[in-house]
This record gives sequence, C-alpha cells and structure tokens, in this order.
Amino acid sequence: MKLAVDAMGGDNAPESIINGCKLALETYSDLEIILIGKENEIKKFIDPSDRVKILHTDVVIEGEDSPVKAVRRKKDSSMVLSVQQVKEGKADSAISAGNTGALMTAGLLGVGRIKGIERPALSPMLPTLGGEGFLLLDVGANMEAKASHLYQYALMGSIYMQKVRKVKQPRIGLLNVGSEPGKGTELSKEVYTLLSESSLNFVGNVEARDLLEGVADVVVCDGFSGNLVLKSIEGTALSLFTILKKELTSSLKNKLAAGILKPAFKQVKLKMDYSEYGGAGLFGLDAPIIKAHGSSDDRGFFSAIKQAHTMHEENVVETIRKELEINEEGKE
Amino acid sequence: MKLAVDAMGGDNAPESIINGCKLALETYSDLEIILIGKENEIKKFIDPSDRVKILHTDVVIEGEDSPVKAVRRKKDSSMVLSVQQVKEGKADSAISAGNTGALMTAGLLGVGRIKGIERPALSPMLPTLGGEGFLLLDVGANMEAKASHLYQYALMGSIYMQKVRKVKQPRIGLLNVGSEPGKGTELSKEVYTLLSESSLNFVGNVEARDLLEGVADVVVCDGFSGNLVLKSIEGTALSLFTILKKELTSSLKNKLAAGILKPAFKQVKLKMDYSEYGGAGLFGLDAPIIKAHGSSDDRGFFSAIKQAHTMHEENVVETIRKELEINEEGKE
Repeated sequence: MKLAVDAMGGDNAPESIINGCKLALETYSDLEIILIGKENEIKKFIDPSDRVKILHTDVVIEGEDSPVKAVRRKKDSSMVLSVQQVKEGKADSAISAGNTGALMTAGLLGVGRIKGIERPALSPMLPTLGGEGFLLLDVGANMEAKASHLYQYALMGSIYMQKVRKVKQPRIGLLNVGSEPGKGTELSKEVYTLLSESSLNFVGNVEARDLLEGVADVVVCDGFSGNLVLKSIEGTALSLFTILKKELTSSLKNKLAAGILKPAFKQVKLKMDYSEYGGAGLFGLDAPIIKAHGSSDDRGFFSAIKQAHTMHEENVVETIRKELEINEEGKE
Repeated sequence: MKLAVDAMGGDNAPESIINGCKLALETYSDLEIILIGKENEIKKFIDPSDRVKILHTDVVIEGEDSPVKAVRRKKDSSMVLSVQQVKEGKADSAISAGNTGALMTAGLLGVGRIKGIERPALSPMLPTLGGEGFLLLDVGANMEAKASHLYQYALMGSIYMQKVRKVKQPRIGLLNVGSEPGKGTELSKEVYTLLSESSLNFVGNVEARDLLEGVADVVVCDGFSGNLVLKSIEGTALSLFTILKKELTSSLKNKLAAGILKPAFKQVKLKMDYSEYGGAGLFGLDAPIIKAHGSSDDRGFFSAIKQAHTMHEENVVETIRKELEINEEGKE
C-alpha cells in the first residue's frame, strides 16, 4: 500500500508524524510512504529509502487559514500535494493532522466524492467505557444536513465498522434528545423513518448522555450537533482531569496518595484517549483520506495510518460504492 | 412570598421535596408554602401550620407521561394544580421536580407567556471550574428555533444573571462550532448579527469545549443543541466518575490511597454538582416557574426554592416585561 503523508500538519509535526510513520513501516511490510513537506526538516528524523520517499515543498497550510482560500491559493502546500498524490494514482490514501476544513476541501477538489454520495462526513471514533468505541458522524463537515445525508452517513458508518472494526452487525443510533420515536426536530423525525425502513441495524434514537456507555456502534447526526457533542465530551473530560489534578496535588498527603494511584489514573486516561482509535475518516471521499488528531503524538499518528491501511485492505471505499449502486438499482 | 410546591414530582418525592421546603422555611421568614399532593404522604414529613398549607390530590403526572396529553387529562394532578395556584393569584411562584415537558405545558396553559416573548426557554445553571456557573438556554423547550427566539433568550438570561446571580454585565455567548464570526448554521450567523447589534454584552461565539472554563455567563442556543450539550456534559462527567471509581477500588492498595483522597474527590464532585445552582427556570413564562432537577435531594430542592425566592424578590419577570416594552418602543 502506498500512503501520502502531510509531514507538516498538526501540533507535533514533523517529529511525531515521522515517528508514527516509522512505527507503521515496522508493522506493515507492504507499506510505502511519501512524506510531503520541508525536506531538510523531514531528513532530521528519517532517511529516504526504497520504502520512504520525500516530496519537498516549503508551503504549509496553517491551522487558522480559511479552508477554501488556503486550498485554492496554496496549491503547493504539503496538504494539497498529499491529496494530489492520491488523485494522480501515486498513492492509495492520504493522511494529514493539519487544518480539518482545508483537508476536506482538498479532498473534495482533489479526489472528489464517491458516486452517489451527496455529502462526505467527518467521522471520528470516540471512546466508550467498555473500550470498543463508537463512530460519530458527521462532526462538522456539513452544518446543514438533509435526511438523505444522515441516511448515507449511517450506511458508510455501518460498512466502516464492519470492515475496519470487525463489528458484525453494527448498531446504528440516531443522536436525539430522547429515546422515544417522535422526539427531536423535523429532521430527526424524517431520519428516524428513513433508518427504520432501511436494511441497516437501526437501534433507534440515542441520547448524548449514553454515548460513552456504548449504546450504539455508529451514531449519526448533522455536523453542527456532532461537533457540539464531540467538543462537549472532550471539554468535560479535560476540565475534570484539570480539577482532579489540582485537588489531588493540593497537599503533600494528597500527592503521596495520588502517586500510588498513578497507574489507575493512567488506565482511566487511556480509556478516554481516542488517539488509540485512529483519526477521523473523511467518509464519502473517493479514497481513504484520514484526518489525524491535531495533537497526535507518535502513537496517535500510527493509529491513523493503521486505519488508512485497514480501509485500503478491506476495500471500504469500493464497498460503499457498490452498496450505493445496489440501493440505486433497488429504487428503479 | 407564597410558593406552590408540587410535592409528588421527582425521584425523591415527597421526602426530599419537603425537607427542601423545611430548610427554606427556616431560611426565609417571609416564605409561605402550599404543598400539593397526597395529604397522608405529605403529613408523614411535615405538619400544616400558618406558613404551610396542604392541598390534597391523588393524581400525579408521571415522568414517562406524554406532556401535552398528561396536562390536558390530569387537570387535578399535583403539578397542574401547583401552576393553577399561581394563575389564581394564590401563589407567586411554582416549583416541580417532575416531568419537564409537562411543567412547560402546564405553565404555558396556566400562567402563559410574558407579553412579547415568542417562546419560553428551559434554562438551567451549569457548573464552571471557577464555581460561578453559567446559564445555558434553551435546553429543550423548543426544538426548532428562530433567530429572534435566541435573541430573547439572551435578553432574559442577561436579566436573570444580573438580578439573581449578581453579575454586573453578564457576558452573552452564542454556542457555535468555532469562535470566529461566520461559523455555524444559517441560524448561527443570523443570531450573531442580531446579538452584535444589540445593547447586550455579547462576547461572540463560544465553543462547547470551553463552557466549563467559564467563557460566558449566558450561553444561548436552540433547544435541540442545548439539550445535546447538557446531556453530553452530564454523561461524560458521570461516565468518568464511574470508571474512576472502578479503577480506584480495583486493589486494596488503591482503595487505601483513594480513601485518603476522599475529601479531594468530594471537592471535585461538588464543583460539578449543579444542584447547588438551583433548578432550571422556565424563562418567558409570566411568573417564576422552576423545574427542580428530577433527582433533587434536600439541598437541591432548597436551591430551587432559593432561586424562585430571589426571582420573586428581584422582580425578574417584571424586569423582562419592561425591557421588552422598551425594545418594542425603540422599534417604533
């Protein structure tokens, strides 16, 4: 498998990006990587070889750049060139830990949508207490969604969970304000009907309160809601850890006791750490394009590569395409 | 002040409801309470007096009842009768820890809206790390909101925070997926403009991730989004405490260390405990109607009474009414 990697994206670039690549090269013997970015900086951490190529560019899209403008103006940026490799058939997949909106734009302009997909969705895996995790989509690619978009999110999510996470019959939940049918907005009600009538394993409405308990394997929602929920979960976990740390180090006695509990706290943090689950897929694009978390460390970036690798091996994009064709034929 | 209390609503009724009332009667010498519900059950915990009346009814609205149907069919329920006391001028305010939707419906049919208010909003205080808390509205009274509704939420929230929480110039934030202007849905953009042009102390878009850090005193959003965010925060905090407890009691050594840290953990839980902040106001109704948390304990219900008491003393409803009149005159 050939992978294009934006070496300059994210908070810990290029070091953690490249360390993640090194781990992946050791793990997957079929893997070849094209690192795109500032050659002299990349070479500090890795040497080119028959499995590692470097494509030099000085241009970088920044986190605060406006996505559409950045992609149009910075055609030679490490991110746009990474997607370009996929478009030109030089890579099977591309990964970046950089600007999410820009990556979606670059993906849409570069590789385009799978035929039949109306809107691609940004689709991260989130942690659950049991450790299986769940897929939440969309978390912000499209602010205003139609019922048919959410149906397609469910379809793509279901295929992903089957192929990549090996869940046999992924449970599809609709994010809503109550579990009973008839709850929520007009959109919620429309999607509820669509999913009920589909062949997907729809388990009904799921509430934001129960997400971390693992009530569903795939949770669909419009991008505005998904983004709010994702950030509420992140923010609450972070805030709680912050005040815990403060309270637990407020005296020497507490510090000593907290020291004993360090491994236990580490376990809890690990359970809440979604870098273990990979990055966020840009599902619906015509190739596996993965957004690694902006704060990815070595292990986090490795997980994103693992995800791209499995999506490629298991023909996720191809399966979505075929499933859509069957759906279309069914309608005719 | 005369307060009508639904003695049968919530998980711990009537005991915690009545204990909360007792605390309030000790605290506020001007307070008179009408307890509405099953007389023999109420009398187990309190005796009638010149400050405590009991209005007997056997009918109770259950948590799972459909709000509109329940209010229409159960006209003699403890909840509907509580609101009725306010309508008939026998009480200044009503509180229930029961079915939220039913209370909103009973409030709308009973006391009605403040003239000029398009939609009342369910408005709880949420905790912040610094302890000041913030008001989030709407969290579910109206699923589909217009820009003018959110503007009115901001106005009501601002007055509430000034009068009841004594914040001089409440910072108003718009819940959104990014902090820059121009983010979010069409609704977000419209509300952003409205709030920017208003005389309120608008601090711009706020992200769900930063809410517990105290980025704003009042955060406005549509009821669907607000409900998702509220439940995400609750759910994440609960889930984290669950796994923490599990990990910290997984061995004898851990148990001992965790024992030493118990007061510290208690501090953290207290910081996240919004029962201290009172219930959720049904802002926009023509009297202070308060929804106490369903799982209110003695202290939680007392806080809700405190809130009703301050809203009454500080003429919050009257102030909102006047502010709306000034706004209307300004438009003419």
